[in-house]
Amino acid sequence: MLGFVIVSHSKRLADEVIELCNEMKKYNFPVLNGSGTDEDYLGSNPLIIAEAIKKAYIKGGVAIFGDLGSSILNAELALEFLDEDYDKEKIKIMDAPLVEGVLMGMAINDDKLTLKELEDELKELKFLSKI
Amino acid sequence: MLGFVIVSHSKRLADEVIELCNEMKKYNFPVLNGSGTDEDYLGSNPLIIAEAIKKAYIKGGVAIFGDLGSSILNAELALEFLDEDYDKEKIKIMDAPLVEGVLMGMAINDDKLTLKELEDELKELKFLSKI
Repeated sequence: MLGFVIVSHSKRLADEVIELCNEMKKYNFPVLNGSGTDEDYLGSNPLIIAEAIKKAYIKGGVAIFGDLGSSILNAELALEFLDEDYDKEKIKIMDAPLVEGVLMGMAINDDKLTLKELEDELKELKFLSKI
Repeated sequence: MLGFVIVSHSKRLADEVIELCNEMKKYNFPVLNGSGTDEDYLGSNPLIIAEAIKKAYIKGGVAIFGDLGSSILNAELALEFLDEDYDKEKIKIMDAPLVEGVLMGMAINDDKLTLKELEDELKELKFLSKI
């Protein structure tokens, strides 16, 4: 079982991704919003992302889902702010589209799921044609 | 220039995608929410998507961005509900991730952009690695 952190250019968009995830998920796991800055719902901040990672951190680890550009860069920076209480082998940014990745990840996140298995499943999304 | 239609499993999520798009876009073009049903903000309905397509329809055409599964299927069904006032060659579902596709599409949607050019640009998103 993994915790999820959502990092979008819009904190309100991420809130709705989390709401949808919570509506549809079968099992209970933490889904935290790592988006926004102290001043604005737009943008992101590595320190805020790091706090979200800490709150989402459970035994299996944490999967971070970002949209594009600065969301991903700030998530990478956030990893630098974690001390050794957090096993960085168990915290990874997913190479997957934000909404589709969360929906697919939520559907398979059970007691046995590892970060490696989630990454492998999400690889399939890359080659999935929608039309 | 193209109009956009957003079809997500959550109408509120799509509202926030549209809000983000409107915050960041350089040019003015219609971005309509085709998500939700008459009863619920979750799910989608081909008739509601068809109405959104009609409102988003401008000279260049309409690009439809959906998340997964029923959003895409209902968007396909919506195309059947359009009469011959709407040139179906100019209305297409994008094979792109929802949030990332809209952000990339919004950034290049100008007076000259055609549906074919947008599709070609969005293909690059498929092979873009986030990490």
